Amino acid sequence: MGAKRAGKQTYKPDSPPVIIGAAAVVGPFEGQGPLKDYFDHAYTDIMAGERTFEAAEREMLLNACFTCLNNTNKTAKDMDFFLAGDLLNQTITSGFSALELSIPYFGIYGACATSAEGLALAAMLVDGGFASFVLTGTSSHNASAERQYRYPTEYGFSRKPHMQWTVTGAGAAIVARDGEGPRITAVTVGKVCDLGIKDPLNLGAAMAPAAADTMVRHFADTGRGPDYYDLILTGDLGKFGHTLAIKTAVSKGGFDLSKNCRDCGLMIYDTETQDVHAGGSGCAASAVVAYGYLYKKLMRGELRRILLVATGALHSPVSCFQGNSIPAIAHAVSIEMI
Amino acid sequence: MGAKRAGKQTYKPDSPPVIIGAAAVVGPFEGQGPLKDYFDHAYTDIMAGERTFEAAEREMLLNACFTCLNNTNKTAKDMDFFLAGDLLNQTITSGFSALELSIPYFGIYGACATSAEGLALAAMLVDGGFASFVLTGTSSHNASAERQYRYPTEYGFSRKPHMQWTVTGAGAAIVARDGEGPRITAVTVGKVCDLGIKDPLNLGAAMAPAAADTMVRHFADTGRGPDYYDLILTGDLGKFGHTLAIKTAVSKGGFDLSKNCRDCGLMIYDTETQDVHAGGSGCAASAVVAYGYLYKKLMRGELRRILLVATGALHSPVSCFQGNSIPAIAHAVSIEMI
Repeated sequence: MGAKRAGKQTYKPDSPPVIIGAAAVVGPFEGQGPLKDYFDHAYTDIMAGERTFEAAEREMLLNACFTCLNNTNKTAKDMDFFLAGDLLNQTITSGFSALELSIPYFGIYGACATSAEGLALAAMLVDGGFASFVLTGTSSHNASAERQYRYPTEYGFSRKPHMQWTVTGAGAAIVARDGEGPRITAVTVGKVCDLGIKDPLNLGAAMAPAAADTMVRHFADTGRGPDYYDLILTGDLGKFGHTLAIKTAVSKGGFDLSKNCRDCGLMIYDTETQDVHAGGSGCAASAVVAYGYLYKKLMRGELRRILLVATGALHSPVSCFQGNSIPAIAHAVSIEMI
Repeated sequence: MGAKRAGKQTYKPDSPPVIIGAAAVVGPFEGQGPLKDYFDHAYTDIMAGERTFEAAEREMLLNACFTCLNNTNKTAKDMDFFLAGDLLNQTITSGFSALELSIPYFGIYGACATSAEGLALAAMLVDGGFASFVLTGTSSHNASAERQYRYPTEYGFSRKPHMQWTVTGAGAAIVARDGEGPRITAVTVGKVCDLGIKDPLNLGAAMAPAAADTMVRHFADTGRGPDYYDLILTGDLGKFGHTLAIKTAVSKGGFDLSKNCRDCGLMIYDTETQDVHAGGSGCAASAVVAYGYLYKKLMRGELRRILLVATGALHSPVSCFQGNSIPAIAHAVSIEMI
């Protein structure tokens, strides 16, 4: 039993680490969405001035990291660790960004749950006395993700209603021992769940059980109910996955999430006018909503207690082609102004 | 500054965590090599009874994990975290293994440095008070790696002398707060290095600068010289990379590694009779040497102080096709019987 254990999967730091800064940059499409005023930068060019989609994604992750460092008057040299991961094979965006930043680097992978995995580990490294400052970031790019996950697509393929749209963008945050800002007061580390969904175009359904499992565990471990939080943010589950997660949280734990639970994938686009079907997805979805929208809301005092429940589908194209189902995970991070 | 910081990149736990158990399983080819008596299991079938190479790799990682749990009289339920990663896209072997084990899971990625990344993070989570037991593991499979990294290969392609052979196998270890076994007394977390090597068939050369950088940093941070250790184990650098790393450690830091530095990739095969060219590679290379050979040598008192310097090439095939060079990383973990 860890001394800081608040339950089977939940940890409460002795001295809650502070998120002293955060930054989010997005692509042109996301820059037209309802959260546009909360992003630090929106590119007008999906290539971000680079030759390849992959290089564009790297430019975005580095931009988010450097903006975050600038926002906090820190440099890369001040950082003890860089924790990052992304959807691209061998998390290459993060590897190249770590090269540029030259900060001791732990590569992580939680698919679209990477934002919360980074925050959770950063909080533990800081609270454990191993770091004063940890930079954590993640990214996704619609075109690099499509190339990797869905190429080749059939001729005349029409998008199904449960499909999601990979967010182009990147987010980064600095977790510190001391400073001003919202604090990480609890972390619930998820287990991998798999209820047998095999359709890689229906990731919301694949991830919903993991989201519900981690939320129910978080509430049980902390003794907090959903109403403890001003906002509970799942995602990227999208329209169908979010509904399913809310239903599952009731059936598995009796927790009513209908009032204050929203989904990152549903917030980033105007689903009426922007044609994204079930909503946004990708590592950047939860990252830009958390590090853009949420962080500013917390800093302005418009929100005080939030629970970020980032969700990731851990499949690979090869694994799906081989007939396997889609394993998924969710990590929950409680962020509070205290 | 972290309270437990021993230098710019090095951390010394207050209470050095114990590796209470370790296990290594290998494929048939590795089972004929010079370390065969140190492995817990050698498969006679490269498919390990499964339908696909990828499923075989998963079977091996799970076998290593369950053998390690059995060796220590523990169950998966006793574990607070599972830290794992592998070479396959989206580290799918680890994701599926985490599903089977049902332990709260942090996916990690350090390519062939994943073994040391897992040990380093596990030591910090234990010493930080967040865990009593952490299971960490990694794997690679020659055929799944070849399919992913080197398919399609040209007709009549002949292997070049600096090419390495991906090790088939998996290793796992349990890091605990208390117990019997060697202890993790220091950890040096690497930075990503890239000296411009673009040939993905020459990974030893790409990784050598990272290995040297981390070793030089470790010696500078700890004040220990190479002769502090009975054995310094790089890898998987292979024949040429290992020579280059030793030369670089002299030129960059004046450290003489000629006496007690060996390479995992050179130990696992008999390079005279087994046709692997420059030696072994893959996440399993350092994992099976460390968790098979080293662990047993330490437990028998035949070695007392070792430094594991696992090295990883963080490239992806897409990244190489796009003309990028190969970023690499190395993490060092000091393991001692004290």
